[in-house]
Amino acid sequence: MPHPDLPILPSESSHLTQKFGRETANYFSGSPLNRLSFLRSDTAFLRLAYAHPRARFLLLNNLHPLVQGSDSSRLAFATHADVAPLAGADPFAKSEEEMVEGFDSREEQVVVVFLGVDEKGEVEVEQRGEGEGEFEYKGFRGPPYFAVDVTPRGKGTAAAEGLIEAVKGRGYAFHDHSPRHMGLHAGQAAMYGQARALVDWNARTPFCAQCGQPTLSVHAGTKRVCPPADKAPGVERRPCATRGTVANHSFPRTDPTVIMAIVSADGSKVLLGRNRRFPKDWYSTLAGFQEPGESIEEAVRREVWEESGVRVGRVILHSSQPWPFPASLMIGAIGQAQPDGEEIYLGHDAELEDAKWFPLDEVREALAKGVSSLGDPAPTSHVEGALRLPPPTAIANRLITAVVDGWWVSSRM
Amino acid sequence: MPHPDLPILPSESSHLTQKFGRETANYFSGSPLNRLSFLRSDTAFLRLAYAHPRARFLLLNNLHPLVQGSDSSRLAFATHADVAPLAGADPFAKSEEEMVEGFDSREEQVVVVFLGVDEKGEVEVEQRGEGEGEFEYKGFRGPPYFAVDVTPRGKGTAAAEGLIEAVKGRGYAFHDHSPRHMGLHAGQAAMYGQARALVDWNARTPFCAQCGQPTLSVHAGTKRVCPPADKAPGVERRPCATRGTVANHSFPRTDPTVIMAIVSADGSKVLLGRNRRFPKDWYSTLAGFQEPGESIEEAVRREVWEESGVRVGRVILHSSQPWPFPASLMIGAIGQAQPDGEEIYLGHDAELEDAKWFPLDEVREALAKGVSSLGDPAPTSHVEGALRLPPPTAIANRLITAVVDGWWVSSRM
Ligand SMILES: [Zn+2]
Ligand SMILES: [Zn+2]
Repeated sequence: MPHPDLPILPSESSHLTQKFGRETANYFSGSPLNRLSFLRSDTAFLRLAYAHPRARFLLLNNLHPLVQGSDSSRLAFATHADVAPLAGADPFAKSEEEMVEGFDSREEQVVVVFLGVDEKGEVEVEQRGEGEGEFEYKGFRGPPYFAVDVTPRGKGTAAAEGLIEAVKGRGYAFHDHSPRHMGLHAGQAAMYGQARALVDWNARTPFCAQCGQPTLSVHAGTKRVCPPADKAPGVERRPCATRGTVANHSFPRTDPTVIMAIVSADGSKVLLGRNRRFPKDWYSTLAGFQEPGESIEEAVRREVWEESGVRVGRVILHSSQPWPFPASLMIGAIGQAQPDGEEIYLGHDAELEDAKWFPLDEVREALAKGVSSLGDPAPTSHVEGALRLPPPTAIANRLITAVVDGWWVSSRM
Repeated sequence: MPHPDLPILPSESSHLTQKFGRETANYFSGSPLNRLSFLRSDTAFLRLAYAHPRARFLLLNNLHPLVQGSDSSRLAFATHADVAPLAGADPFAKSEEEMVEGFDSREEQVVVVFLGVDEKGEVEVEQRGEGEGEFEYKGFRGPPYFAVDVTPRGKGTAAAEGLIEAVKGRGYAFHDHSPRHMGLHAGQAAMYGQARALVDWNARTPFCAQCGQPTLSVHAGTKRVCPPADKAPGVERRPCATRGTVANHSFPRTDPTVIMAIVSADGSKVLLGRNRRFPKDWYSTLAGFQEPGESIEEAVRREVWEESGVRVGRVILHSSQPWPFPASLMIGAIGQAQPDGEEIYLGHDAELEDAKWFPLDEVREALAKGVSSLGDPAPTSHVEGALRLPPPTAIANRLITAVVDGWWVSSRM
């Protein structure tokens, strides 16, 4: 039974589904948009899409998205007329080459990210501007979506504040959709995740890590280049190795993170841990950042051993979850402890306050009665002192559920 | 039958293995070292380990590792006496706090990366210095391994050149172990991958992407911080948001990449593609970078559609491969095409020169007769005009093999 806050996958019937069960669609995945990534350098496309009456703009103010004031689970959108005073009427007029050539470090860029085209018309409940004709380009048809960073700063402060006031005047609001709540409707959460990750990356990465000089946002917010010259008087640009090559520093950073439900060697228990910031009785799966030069399976074994002392044998990859706080990709795995490796030792690393093996029955009970978002109180079904667990919008919950449901021993899901 | 160049996993017998088969250990995984990541800030540990007679140093010159001159498949190592003139006799004497406090941008850091401890004594064939007593710290016992960037540059040029000459005088050599060959012995390839990724990240990331000012390498080469002040006269440091918080910019970057074998809806064919740089008749699995705000499964579907026009339904995650060129993590998946989505169209994106559905029999034949490294000639068993495929050291080969072996429909692996 899918949770209402989780993305819905098309019904599947394939050899892979027969053996491995249905794909797990985690919260923050399941975007309704086609990113059309190959059109990010097509200025003809970007100009038409940006100026089209059906174009929609997701505004982020200090990374908080604009939502329907009456229903913070649904995003609200601005139009071209709204954003033009801040972001310009035609910000995609120049090609990447022309932008690099004309680079002037005195100019302040307002970052506009092209998110994709809503080919199935799934995003907006009311189809505003129906009479205006649908946007279409090279066979791709549907409202184009952009994200705009409207955080008031620098020379754009007044324009940003005007835009913020205008949309608030329509009853919209900027809502703090942090990991402690995750209250956005599924497909819209995925759009917000994409927008948040890219707007934040542009804001937090204004300099070249290779040479220390200011960079320029190109490819509709998905690339930052290090120009060779600057129109600002008296500014001499030093050479940089990122020029004339493909450098990873030019592209958004995504940090792979492993998160894992570990079952005991006999399959009767699951290993969970807690840190000091968790509410009383709350436990979750262990997790940690992937390091350079290790496989995901090795990272799972390393992190579990470092945090809990437990030694893990076989690891299988379960599903993944984009996690835009600020830029993680959660890779969910299920691992099985080695028969002689189940002893818990917390002394390697100060990360966990506690780690414990929980019998599957206790975990099943907690999934039924003790699940809530980290920022919310325990549900009324929760009994004081019993185990509390993360909500279905967290991949931790999906991994624990997979273990309890026996996904890893049977194919019945 | 494991390939000699692939890491060997401990024999496994678990519920997970019964259902999913043995774990696939890809080349560049399977490091024999325990990273002991929680000791990277323990200067007492680092000082003792660095100065110990059993410490071993993997030298990288322009990212090429030092190898046994007579056998380039085995790494060669230097000792404390060798590296002290370049890297210092006691480079870990100061804590992170003291290093930040004493930051002087005129000083040039020689990056020394702590790789881990060889607890099982697997790395060196000859146990040199046997009489010297094994290194031990808080119960962790075995030779400690470090990587040192010996590329001649700046004030360290003469010392680096001296060190390079000294090790060459022992018959060792620096070897170009690029992705086109991958000739290192399995466990040693993993050590090299870790060393290469971290040495390269330090070399290519000397500035703070948040504020543009020079950074300082701490935590034994695994973190770079943005100091608030500079001892160099007349240098005023600007404020930076990375200070006093955990910022991802301070940690090594790892770029998740999806790579996938796509089977046809009826399971009879596999989708492979080629780009212009491949030799004649050579095809491989499709691949591409993970983008912000999408799950791995979504990235697989997006990349396959963008590159080949094929629409993919169910995706399962198979295994992973660290890929230190410069900092990728290859996430291997198997996906199944939608019954009405198998038509190939290359026009979205200019990335592929060709993509084709290959019957499993033809692929099986190519795995038996047409496999070689990208930089090597076709094997003598190859028949001119027949399909050529990547070697078992590439995860592409492991994914194609899994499909041909029916892993995705049966559990017999
Ligand atoms: Zn640069
Ligand atoms: Zn900084």
